[in-house]
Amino acid sequence: MKKTLIALALLSAPALADEGMWMPQQLPDIAKQLKAAGLKLNPKELTQLTEFPMGAIVSLGGCSASFVSPQGLVATNHHCVYNSIAYNSTPENDLLANGFLAKALSDEVAAAPGSRIYVTKAVDNVTDKIIDKATAKLTGQARINAIEANQKALVAACEADEGHRCTVASYYGGLEFYLIKQLEIKDVRLVHAPAEGVGKFGGDTDNWMWPRHTGDYSFYRAYVSPEGKSAEYSEDNVPYQPEFHIKLAKKPLQEGDFVMALGYPGRTNRHRLPSEVLDTFEWSYPNTVSRFKETLDIIAEQTADNKDGELKYASRVAGLNNYMKNRQGMLDSYAESDLLERKQAEHTALKEWVNSNKKNRAAYAADLEAIEALLKKAQDEGRKSYTLDVATPRLLGMAKALYRLSNEQTKPNAERKAGFQERDLPRYRAFVAGLDRSFDVSVEKALDKHFLARYVALPKTERDAQFDAAMGITDNMSTNELNALIDSWYASTLFTDSKARAALLEQSPEQFAQSSDPFIKAAVAMWDYDREQEAEAEEHAGKVQQAYANYMKAKIAFMKAQGKAVYPDANSTLRVTYGNVTGRDHGTHDGTAWTAFTTLRGITDKATGEGEFNAPQAQLDKIKAKDYGDYYVKSLDSVPVNYLATLDITGGNSGSAVLNDKAELVGLAFDGTLDSIISDWDFNLDNTRSIQVDSRFMLWQMEKVDGADELLRELGVK
Amino acid sequence: MKKTLIALALLSAPALADEGMWMPQQLPDIAKQLKAAGLKLNPKELTQLTEFPMGAIVSLGGCSASFVSPQGLVATNHHCVYNSIAYNSTPENDLLANGFLAKALSDEVAAAPGSRIYVTKAVDNVTDKIIDKATAKLTGQARINAIEANQKALVAACEADEGHRCTVASYYGGLEFYLIKQLEIKDVRLVHAPAEGVGKFGGDTDNWMWPRHTGDYSFYRAYVSPEGKSAEYSEDNVPYQPEFHIKLAKKPLQEGDFVMALGYPGRTNRHRLPSEVLDTFEWSYPNTVSRFKETLDIIAEQTADNKDGELKYASRVAGLNNYMKNRQGMLDSYAESDLLERKQAEHTALKEWVNSNKKNRAAYAADLEAIEALLKKAQDEGRKSYTLDVATPRLLGMAKALYRLSNEQTKPNAERKAGFQERDLPRYRAFVAGLDRSFDVSVEKALDKHFLARYVALPKTERDAQFDAAMGITDNMSTNELNALIDSWYASTLFTDSKARAALLEQSPEQFAQSSDPFIKAAVAMWDYDREQEAEAEEHAGKVQQAYANYMKAKIAFMKAQGKAVYPDANSTLRVTYGNVTGRDHGTHDGTAWTAFTTLRGITDKATGEGEFNAPQAQLDKIKAKDYGDYYVKSLDSVPVNYLATLDITGGNSGSAVLNDKAELVGLAFDGTLDSIISDWDFNLDNTRSIQVDSRFMLWQMEKVDGADELLRELGVK
Repeated sequence: MKKTLIALALLSAPALADEGMWMPQQLPDIAKQLKAAGLKLNPKELTQLTEFPMGAIVSLGGCSASFVSPQGLVATNHHCVYNSIAYNSTPENDLLANGFLAKALSDEVAAAPGSRIYVTKAVDNVTDKIIDKATAKLTGQARINAIEANQKALVAACEADEGHRCTVASYYGGLEFYLIKQLEIKDVRLVHAPAEGVGKFGGDTDNWMWPRHTGDYSFYRAYVSPEGKSAEYSEDNVPYQPEFHIKLAKKPLQEGDFVMALGYPGRTNRHRLPSEVLDTFEWSYPNTVSRFKETLDIIAEQTADNKDGELKYASRVAGLNNYMKNRQGMLDSYAESDLLERKQAEHTALKEWVNSNKKNRAAYAADLEAIEALLKKAQDEGRKSYTLDVATPRLLGMAKALYRLSNEQTKPNAERKAGFQERDLPRYRAFVAGLDRSFDVSVEKALDKHFLARYVALPKTERDAQFDAAMGITDNMSTNELNALIDSWYASTLFTDSKARAALLEQSPEQFAQSSDPFIKAAVAMWDYDREQEAEAEEHAGKVQQAYANYMKAKIAFMKAQGKAVYPDANSTLRVTYGNVTGRDHGTHDGTAWTAFTTLRGITDKATGEGEFNAPQAQLDKIKAKDYGDYYVKSLDSVPVNYLATLDITGGNSGSAVLNDKAELVGLAFDGTLDSIISDWDFNLDNTRSIQVDSRFMLWQMEKVDGADELLRELGVK
Repeated sequence: MKKTLIALALLSAPALADEGMWMPQQLPDIAKQLKAAGLKLNPKELTQLTEFPMGAIVSLGGCSASFVSPQGLVATNHHCVYNSIAYNSTPENDLLANGFLAKALSDEVAAAPGSRIYVTKAVDNVTDKIIDKATAKLTGQARINAIEANQKALVAACEADEGHRCTVASYYGGLEFYLIKQLEIKDVRLVHAPAEGVGKFGGDTDNWMWPRHTGDYSFYRAYVSPEGKSAEYSEDNVPYQPEFHIKLAKKPLQEGDFVMALGYPGRTNRHRLPSEVLDTFEWSYPNTVSRFKETLDIIAEQTADNKDGELKYASRVAGLNNYMKNRQGMLDSYAESDLLERKQAEHTALKEWVNSNKKNRAAYAADLEAIEALLKKAQDEGRKSYTLDVATPRLLGMAKALYRLSNEQTKPNAERKAGFQERDLPRYRAFVAGLDRSFDVSVEKALDKHFLARYVALPKTERDAQFDAAMGITDNMSTNELNALIDSWYASTLFTDSKARAALLEQSPEQFAQSSDPFIKAAVAMWDYDREQEAEAEEHAGKVQQAYANYMKAKIAFMKAQGKAVYPDANSTLRVTYGNVTGRDHGTHDGTAWTAFTTLRGITDKATGEGEFNAPQAQLDKIKAKDYGDYYVKSLDSVPVNYLATLDITGGNSGSAVLNDKAELVGLAFDGTLDSIISDWDFNLDNTRSIQVDSRFMLWQMEKVDGADELLRELGVK
């Protein structure tokens, strides 16, 4: 019992944190809350992106990470470097299974092609340049085109500084825009990853689950040219020397302690309108879940006796399963929550506030009304085209993209549509070159036959005449006729020939027009129609941009009037979330709770010696021998492995450095619990918990099991 | 989060209780601890067995219970009245499945034959009468015989008061003896039991498990003659009017609150010697578990296509499974504990204390040495005879018991061996009459063949020559020969003929000697040998009694010298245990904890509509409708179902009234958690939790689902 009481005393000390993925520059606005939660630093220190600690926080593009040594050592999640471990694995030297440890710099190996480390160098508010005076007057497609032109110009100017990648990110639903300049490190090397039985311990079974015992950490190193510039992989390159790096915590982390996660959360939807909530949870997500279920069944059926096919779709299957579990988790949470009612009440209150005085009414009322109608229109159209959207063959999409690229390349670079410029070419090349590794004709044909059968069964008025004409779909087509048609596409397509496919990247629109490939022919035939559709969509998008931005402006003004600081929804830019280490008074089952920490005991309990719970024997032996070293925590009578905190994170935060009140490293965020996923829409402090790997576990595993002594020295630990 | 903090604040308030199954008269010795734990009453009030509240506490013989109305209404566990519900069930009116509710006294039905309610009337220390001056000088068999004679005389005198049942119970391993006089209520009627889907919700799966959601409560009523005397069932009987009854709590029970359980715990082994711990956990229990496993496999095999046989053995199978889970649970706990080391250290300290001064050495040293040797001898002999003990046919045991009874009946009642007196006859009658309901020749033959095969394979020197001669076992017997021999026993036995079996109760030893039944012939043939064995065992027992009692005397003196109060091991007599309502900081899995209460939500979560989790639809509907009535607890946002407490209970405590600090009813104890079972040997406050059904759940179910309005009025609730 003593343990409980101590834990409770600690827990009750600090005020508990609230939700929020804050832009660093906003932190002084919530200085009081940060201090109450336990932060010892001045929040102003966290606003300086090129100072400590923010200067040490980097993005891997889709994952977060941080510099943890003066020699460019980068800590992130095992699952964030998984592809790089797989890329360096061979049947003879299975790094995934056995782990990898470079004993010296010269042993470090290149990460998977395309791996990047992005170091944020500057973030500037460019709202006035994106929505300049001229643009502000525009509406519809003209507005969208002007925004795109301004954006491209800013990016081009920024990227003139070689070795940098620049983006314009939209905040608050298009109300504000920031230009983000990042050093793009292209020579990324794998330094250390524990065995999969540590780094992915628990596998899909434990994904989004608590209790958790995953050692989800690994290390990259950033390399640059001898001159310190961004450079492609070269033996001459040297470790990048960041100005700042995060140091490991000296003070042991305890239940109740302040923590903050610094990283790049992907996307949240907390500021959405009630109608968007309704559409998402009562139409879009349920449809997605059932569609993915069908897709998975078809892939499983087609690859049952096709090991090659199974491998090709393994990553997609994992992704679909992950996404499905995610969406189903949200749907389950939604079913039990009053999210829609609260959203509606909030929106009603906002409208009342807007209409409560003349000035507000003049500023916002029209757009508040307009946005509802615009969203309704988009939802209606989405539903109308849904069956075809789902059924559109993957190769038709590819053909259209490449034909578009060919057309855009006839223009000067600056005038090309965003997404089809010189800077985008590497992505197309990778996409075309990589198709064989994720494409199997039998699977794609089966998917097309399944989903197009549903489409051709629609009455003619609900079908798309242009698509039908281009692809040869006819009225009252029988299943046999449809299947024969689909078979004929794949019999004559050139996309399955990698050389012919690669050649498409060099072809002119005229050459495309001569193609006999059924998908390219359709892409060419539908060109004018697709452009019309695009124009309509842009016309709509321009109206939405304007009205949505003004809705957000009204919402921010309304919340500020109530004394509330407002943070923008996540958009893959650098954010700070703070909270406390704490379990939960309700666990997975009624009558249970979650403790803040798991321990080495749980690894032994779960270990099965195979599959997802294949803990290395050397690790189990060390646990059995109670060889805890400096990482022993008396109150746990073991070494902590993972811990829960009230941090507000989402996809993209994976690998985020989790720091204590003095900005020292105490772990890496790597997951949330299943009933926390709804927090992308609705943060609920009672349920939402992030899951971190405790830095003490990382160090224990590195020292006691993996013998990573050099690395521990570099980390300043030994 | 707020919920956690509130819970924690409550939890940290009272001092936590320690172990102990205290005799009521001991409570003033621990008044300080009781007050610190939260008791509001004066502990002296709890010492008066014929006052409130102890006067309301009764035994059902194997279960505990309490009067809860002035009209003899008795509350206990559903599993304690299970046989009575089954006894009144028919295929057309399945009370087990549907539950039972007598709307009026006239609807109450007789409990299963043999059901009793024992009301303790007096408890007197009779140590000086059992070990009187003459007896104190005796040793070996003479001592045992004298003790038995004294015991029989006291019981006979006590039971001269008609309608009472008296027993002499041994405390502190034979150091003290108490004469317990109980009113024996023989007309017991079933008043109310919820459906099995409530009262046994969770079944074997949840047995000894947390989280738990079992509505393990039911009601009996005690009936007596119109004159208020104990009487067999009669329509003329009237409800017994107890002087005292327990009232339902008015104050809502909360986490951290003081609670005490009043009941009749069966047996614990906390004062055992290290050698007994070793023998039990490293020899006896592991052997028992594997033997039961074999027995269960054979029964399953033999009854696979034998529905009749399956039913006959259902109760034994349940018992074996339950026992096996219990013993395995203890073995698992033992494997992780340092019980043996602690016992050894304690015993070494005791011996050092004994030898630290002349007086102690003179008083105890010789017996401390003697008891070790005596226990070693008994253990050695137990191992030697184990194979035959396990293999002895059930009918041979029965034949020996009945032949013994016949022999004893040739003597005057007072001179008969204890266990074979007039007062024991009903038990033999029930035993003989009931055999058909639990006996199947194919099963018994298969068991004998299995276990005797192992016995006959022993070398001649390790077998029992008398048994072999009596049963026809020969050297180097083949499996076929053994099986043919066993078949011949069952072909010629009269035990399978219920009339012939019943007649045995009336036969003289001479008539037994004429029998052609193979088991009776063997019993007669082994008579002299068995008596010799018994005499040897009694000689040994007499020595053990003397030495063990003195070991306990030394232990008590040693503990008192350290200022510790000592309670005797449980022996099915009335005890009080106190503690607090509290969860646990470590649950079933690392990273989880147990909350103090479960709620109605868990019933809905577990309900499957069939089998062990067949919650009644009416109940699920009420939960869904959130129709909580007066039983809603805000902090739980539901009605509590079960709760955990640090009460020190064991088998026999089932049905114990659990009272708050003012001796008001807050629930019924019905189980412990799996890792608490070891507490029979080693109480560990960190792990040990008792499980109670919350009285608010009982009342909610009775009011909202079962419509037991009259009963609620009788309970003073409505």
